[in-house]
Amino acid sequence: MDRHEFSKKTIEILNRIRDQKPLIHHITNFVVMNSTANVTLAIGASPIMAHAHEEVDVISTFSRALNLNIGTISPYWLDSMLIAGKVAGERGIPIILDPVGSGATPLRTEAAKRILSELPVTVIRGNASEILSLFTNENKIRIRGVDSLEKADTVRDGATRLAKELKKIIAITGEVDFITDGERDIEVHNGNPMLAVVTGTGCSATTAISCFCSVEKDPLVASACALGYYGLAGEEAALSACGPGSFQTALYDTLYNMAEETIMEKLKIKPVK
Amino acid sequence: MDRHEFSKKTIEILNRIRDQKPLIHHITNFVVMNSTANVTLAIGASPIMAHAHEEVDVISTFSRALNLNIGTISPYWLDSMLIAGKVAGERGIPIILDPVGSGATPLRTEAAKRILSELPVTVIRGNASEILSLFTNENKIRIRGVDSLEKADTVRDGATRLAKELKKIIAITGEVDFITDGERDIEVHNGNPMLAVVTGTGCSATTAISCFCSVEKDPLVASACALGYYGLAGEEAALSACGPGSFQTALYDTLYNMAEETIMEKLKIKPVK
Amino acid sequence: MDRHEFSKKTIEILNRIRDQKPLIHHITNFVVMNSTANVTLAIGASPIMAHAHEEVDVISTFSRALNLNIGTISPYWLDSMLIAGKVAGERGIPIILDPVGSGATPLRTEAAKRILSELPVTVIRGNASEILSLFTNENKIRIRGVDSLEKADTVRDGATRLAKELKKIIAITGEVDFITDGERDIEVHNGNPMLAVVTGTGCSATTAISCFCSVEKDPLVASACALGYYGLAGEEAALSACGPGSFQTALYDTLYNMAEETIMEKLKIKPVK
Repeated sequence: MDRHEFSKKTIEILNRIRDQKPLIHHITNFVVMNSTANVTLAIGASPIMAHAHEEVDVISTFSRALNLNIGTISPYWLDSMLIAGKVAGERGIPIILDPVGSGATPLRTEAAKRILSELPVTVIRGNASEILSLFTNENKIRIRGVDSLEKADTVRDGATRLAKELKKIIAITGEVDFITDGERDIEVHNGNPMLAVVTGTGCSATTAISCFCSVEKDPLVASACALGYYGLAGEEAALSACGPGSFQTALYDTLYNMAEETIMEKLKIKPVK
Repeated sequence: MDRHEFSKKTIEILNRIRDQKPLIHHITNFVVMNSTANVTLAIGASPIMAHAHEEVDVISTFSRALNLNIGTISPYWLDSMLIAGKVAGERGIPIILDPVGSGATPLRTEAAKRILSELPVTVIRGNASEILSLFTNENKIRIRGVDSLEKADTVRDGATRLAKELKKIIAITGEVDFITDGERDIEVHNGNPMLAVVTGTGCSATTAISCFCSVEKDPLVASACALGYYGLAGEEAALSACGPGSFQTALYDTLYNMAEETIMEKLKIKPVK
Repeated sequence: MDRHEFSKKTIEILNRIRDQKPLIHHITNFVVMNSTANVTLAIGASPIMAHAHEEVDVISTFSRALNLNIGTISPYWLDSMLIAGKVAGERGIPIILDPVGSGATPLRTEAAKRILSELPVTVIRGNASEILSLFTNENKIRIRGVDSLEKADTVRDGATRLAKELKKIIAITGEVDFITDGERDIEVHNGNPMLAVVTGTGCSATTAISCFCSVEKDPLVASACALGYYGLAGEEAALSACGPGSFQTALYDTLYNMAEETIMEKLKIKPVK
């Protein structure tokens, strides 16, 4: 697929989402529950946030994707993810993991690794430091809380090997996003620095991937289209924003009503291998 | 009361809220804590969010309404609701229940039913599927996560019977809102489709009811006025909105400063029986 | 320092924050996690929200300030604060306490007092009722939920004594903010009534103090500059706002990009003793 075909594919997936309104089950952190629910709605899908052990399995029986996010994780919530993920895996619905802060604390690194070892995760979306933490045992990851201090490109080789070994999609977001299944590599050149000044925009990018994967069976393509669309929404939102408050408002607006021509003209998704 | 009288009543209740700044205790879900607190403030009341068993009873001794919402429910939080509700019931302050997702999972359906059986709930506000789940034992409720797939009008008869039997107000929100105490039925013809594209707007409608009930002793009238005012705020907000982000911003603004003339001209609350 | 010097100091501290992007660990309430994270980012620092006992100590080993907020407190979260605070205290990083609702319920009053007795808190920021609850045993505190009914000036003498006794900074916010270390008293005459119509703006003021304290070793000066800057952002935001929704949006924008000239001209921080 070339850039033009990726743009057409993005529009096609968005139309499917808006037509089907797939239910996206989120087990996510307290900081972004509201904003990721709003991003889900703006994209056209339907969010449900639930974590109680008594119901996460039931919810996985009628959801179309399971979004797992380990920000503000605690043992109870990790168990919620494992319970829901087991059912999601049995049903073959995509599981999307956002390893927020993996590498920053052992709790988070181990939570991410345990999810990966016990569940058939489809896509992992993180920043460079988070992704690096998944395949290194060195304690030298440069991370500031949940912000990456690693450059995305230094992590690409390891991510590609890990994707191949685990048979998963790995998406590293940064100035240029990099998505790989171990065989095919894709770059996304959309995005805007303002995304770093609003909390939870990484988590919301993962939510976008979950929405796209819920209706598209090729998760590599779905992830690339989702990150391109989300990044482009950030670019468009920045055009009218005066700061992070108005940027976030415009981001929701743009995710909701971006014109197809804008997607065709400005989406920059390109295969690199 | 005719439509004109409902408009005047709405203004009168709003003035009372702004004069008294009643404290509205919310035990609500993680997704909407921030937005329902902001709606409470925009309407003119004062929110307190608290769930710890060690303090929910104390808070019920000085609150003016108790807003219970079962989104993201877990057993601990259900107990919080029962503890607070017992005190609220003894003090005779209104208890308003939002059975988010009732019908979607047994945990939620049972939580809603247990609250109804143990607490003197004053008003129940839900979508058609949620309300249907409260009076049917069939497992055929069409619900997508927390979104109703039932048409409001097909649920009216059952809701009216349930309201009469339980001696409660039931409010079904949808394209047209329907509020009944089993004897009197009211329709509210305000609202805007954009409300469905922002998370927690149903929960916020329930918050509006809680604010109105805290200062008005007729909960049927309070609920109708609250839903009319909230729906009209949605209509007005949509006039200037470019999407769900700017819509939510405008919704808070409008709830805060809607002109009395707008209420008199555009509020569409009408008794149907 | 005179008013002019405080303005210059504020600019200097802001530049340091934006240069260093210090990590601010928040253990805070569910209502404001998103908004305080956004305020942290808008000011130029980096937020991490974490509460699990398994990681709060680790996070305190690489954070630059610890922000503790007892809204929606429960015993588990209080323990999280004590665990994190112990490490923060050993490392000598500033601990900033927001005693939300102290005085309203025994759980909150005792939580605030226990934190103060067990941890080397640097700054306490609350409204007049909350601060009063920390040094009186009378059960006559006038508080409505989390809103103060006490006038700030009637609490000043007690706060000054308490600050001196505990060797802490106490900041009482209200129409005029009052900051004292028991020897030096400072008033901040910035702010806007709209701040009271958005939830969590008090909590966000505390977040501003945490950001400023993370890079400035005099916590009295840091607290005064933070409250001045935050209050002035509220003033500036109110100029363009149509209500609480657009006010909050503008508040984030202004915290992010207030011009230095605005700070030099409009910041009103003055020592009173």
